Amino acid sequence: MSNLAMLMDFYEATMANGALLNGHKDTIAYFDMFFRRVPDDGGFAIMAGLKQLIDDLCGLKFTEEDCDYMRARGLFDEEFIKYLEEFKFSCDVWAIPEGTPIFPKEPIVTVRGPIMQLFLIETMLLLNINHQSLIATKANRIVRAAGGRAVLEFGARRAHGADASVMGARAAYIGGCVGTSCVKAGEDFNIPVAGTMAHSWIQLFDSEYEAFKAYATVYPDSCVFLVDTYDTLKKGIPNAIKVANEVLKPLGCRPKGIRIDSGDITYLSKRARKMLDEAGYPDCEICVSNALDEYLIRDMLMQGAKVDTFGVGERLITAKSEAVFGGVYKLVAIEGGDGELIAKIKLSENTSKITLPGFKQCWRLFDRESGKAIADVITLRNEVIDDTLEYELFDPEYTWKRKTVKDFIARPLQVEVFKNGELCYNSPDATAIREYREQQVESLWEEVQRFEKPHKYYVDYSEKLYELQKRLIEESSK
Amino acid sequence: MSNLAMLMDFYEATMANGALLNGHKDTIAYFDMFFRRVPDDGGFAIMAGLKQLIDDLCGLKFTEEDCDYMRARGLFDEEFIKYLEEFKFSCDVWAIPEGTPIFPKEPIVTVRGPIMQLFLIETMLLLNINHQSLIATKANRIVRAAGGRAVLEFGARRAHGADASVMGARAAYIGGCVGTSCVKAGEDFNIPVAGTMAHSWIQLFDSEYEAFKAYATVYPDSCVFLVDTYDTLKKGIPNAIKVANEVLKPLGCRPKGIRIDSGDITYLSKRARKMLDEAGYPDCEICVSNALDEYLIRDMLMQGAKVDTFGVGERLITAKSEAVFGGVYKLVAIEGGDGELIAKIKLSENTSKITLPGFKQCWRLFDRESGKAIADVITLRNEVIDDTLEYELFDPEYTWKRKTVKDFIARPLQVEVFKNGELCYNSPDATAIREYREQQVESLWEEVQRFEKPHKYYVDYSEKLYELQKRLIEESSK
Repeated sequence: MSNLAMLMDFYEATMANGALLNGHKDTIAYFDMFFRRVPDDGGFAIMAGLKQLIDDLCGLKFTEEDCDYMRARGLFDEEFIKYLEEFKFSCDVWAIPEGTPIFPKEPIVTVRGPIMQLFLIETMLLLNINHQSLIATKANRIVRAAGGRAVLEFGARRAHGADASVMGARAAYIGGCVGTSCVKAGEDFNIPVAGTMAHSWIQLFDSEYEAFKAYATVYPDSCVFLVDTYDTLKKGIPNAIKVANEVLKPLGCRPKGIRIDSGDITYLSKRARKMLDEAGYPDCEICVSNALDEYLIRDMLMQGAKVDTFGVGERLITAKSEAVFGGVYKLVAIEGGDGELIAKIKLSENTSKITLPGFKQCWRLFDRESGKAIADVITLRNEVIDDTLEYELFDPEYTWKRKTVKDFIARPLQVEVFKNGELCYNSPDATAIREYREQQVESLWEEVQRFEKPHKYYVDYSEKLYELQKRLIEESSK
Repeated sequence: MSNLAMLMDFYEATMANGALLNGHKDTIAYFDMFFRRVPDDGGFAIMAGLKQLIDDLCGLKFTEEDCDYMRARGLFDEEFIKYLEEFKFSCDVWAIPEGTPIFPKEPIVTVRGPIMQLFLIETMLLLNINHQSLIATKANRIVRAAGGRAVLEFGARRAHGADASVMGARAAYIGGCVGTSCVKAGEDFNIPVAGTMAHSWIQLFDSEYEAFKAYATVYPDSCVFLVDTYDTLKKGIPNAIKVANEVLKPLGCRPKGIRIDSGDITYLSKRARKMLDEAGYPDCEICVSNALDEYLIRDMLMQGAKVDTFGVGERLITAKSEAVFGGVYKLVAIEGGDGELIAKIKLSENTSKITLPGFKQCWRLFDRESGKAIADVITLRNEVIDDTLEYELFDPEYTWKRKTVKDFIARPLQVEVFKNGELCYNSPDATAIREYREQQVESLWEEVQRFEKPHKYYVDYSEKLYELQKRLIEESSK
């Protein structure tokens, strides 16, 4: 993809043109990106995709061909085409850093700027964050299921196109995978790459034994034999052991592992472990693959599968069990002629679709003693949560549910990313984000991390935000 | 994405390097891409993605940085790095054209060439075809559910990255959508683009009425009012009608449509139809959106929903109900020193994973009278199905099930795409592929097109292929 400025929905252009012709060229507005539920009904999601959003926003430019294409639609004013020709991104952007656990309703990205620009970047903003947060969240579930065993991302071939494989590998790494099979992701983001061998390697030779021998000769230090081409227990593992004895041992090397890719891998892994141990290779690792996800991994481990590494492909890279991260982008305020903030709301027949108005911040309250996250509080932007005092939390749905917290540290989650269109944020590299993610997920109680029916983490509103929303609902539904 | 040569799985590089060091530099091999089941248990899939595969193969080149990255892995021979530096694609490629209905087990792409090259292109080949075939197949299901009503692809924001949105829009159009909201897809592939307005347009103005008026003034000929921001029946539709009367009518224009994006859209669409008809706008179309797919559309229409256009987003662009198209790429033959073909097979504990050996062709037999597709037959490449004679089909699983067909036309499905690395195929444009797809899907019996428990279309093997597979299974399982 060379030019992503055109990666917009058509209505963004018609609205921008309409805004221009209705005197809204210089109207300053605020939009929030937020999501309504965690995929797979999990307890939290992992923020990701900000780096690519930044790259896309930095490269935003309409070429002559783009403008010609727009002109040819026959809907746009020539002044609008000129606006596109001279387009320069000049917005402010705040976002929750990648790797942070995020929760429904929270403003994970907030943008402020001329509304025409804010219209035009909607899709670009949403798709980067939606995609990578989806995969990082799924990867983290799978990694948690693996309980400390390594998880490798193996899904490139089933990804939804090239970006999905490369950016998906990045997101999976942020979420907790130890590496990827995707070489381009390795090269672009300095992520560890790994792999074993395909069945075609085995088939290329006259026998599985010959194939293993040929591989061992070239890679004596890093042999992972794929053992299921003909018969895992009767042929594959005995051949692997034979080659380890005949080729590797004389060189002072040991087999790194075997991979099982079909059959009942729980059963096969247990038999394999026994055979390898008895052959004197207790250090030879067992890698398994074949349509795995967190549910299957949990069940396999519960049944005593002997696995060191899970190679997880299609169900991770597509987030198959729920392939949509439903982030949306809603107008929350505009600035009046005198710069005064006018908060905006959107009602809906579906009450869950009612928006949180105003320019906001999201705070996370950590218990000073345990370091655990107690709750998040969404406030208006000019509010400060003073963590030297007590603070009263209340449930915005059941307002009688109240709880006073003290001895906490309050940390605002959004950081400034662009100021007047200038980048003012330094994206950490993928490894740093991965470490930060690990530490942040650890701050969540185990109950919030459960796969099924997790404890609901508190995301409360400040009194002022609550009152603002209430007032606007009343005004708008008149 | 600028450089897709590196879009490979790491094992492809280790195998290619291993092949080089084991005297297989010039070994000629054949690989098939095929899939094992249709997503959503549908009766057929739609082939797509070939155009992008062609583009990627034409651009295949390893840069100096790529070679340095590979060298730094510490696993590859310098001769292999040199091979990458001088890489020139020189394979033969055959494929089933985009838009063709395809079935499990069929070789949808076949490649022949030096095995090192065939190793290196695996991921690139699989991901393009897997992704677009997935979306084209899903789109076609949704379009069939809509029973002649228009379906627009609205999913860019929920796609798995930029490629997924743009290529997904292309695939959705091939599958039968009438257009897309994705402007870049419109520009790149000459696909009709469309859109309405977002809730933010409504919120920008002091009232919904003002917002509609402002839009109608700019777009009197193409107004589609989004009516659910505050209250669809009490506010949205009355405001749309009011603006149609006050702004459009005096200009001699009529409202193009309304869009409903929340609430019970079946109920709302019926009420909306009535209100619009009574206001004198029976031609004002009703567009609905909100997490639609083929199941919901079928149910809505069964309950009498009054819809002219379905805007389908996340469940189409991610194929949410089953987000994986499981195409695989398997070695089927190598050429011996004297050019003789040595067929190869891969067994598996999962019998469905046993491959079809040899260099093959896939034929579709059409009834001469009705034009309907009778069956597909997979043959060895040097076999010809003579459609002036009778032909005996038999089920490869239940070989006693036999059927003699006559008065048919036999059409080989694979066409030549690359010859010795030179492109020799002219990809039709997306609109031509869409038309071809329509005509080809029509050749399938309705029973095969059913969403649930469709009739299984026959995909049989020639006697020779059947015997070859049987012989290799016996030899390999010794």
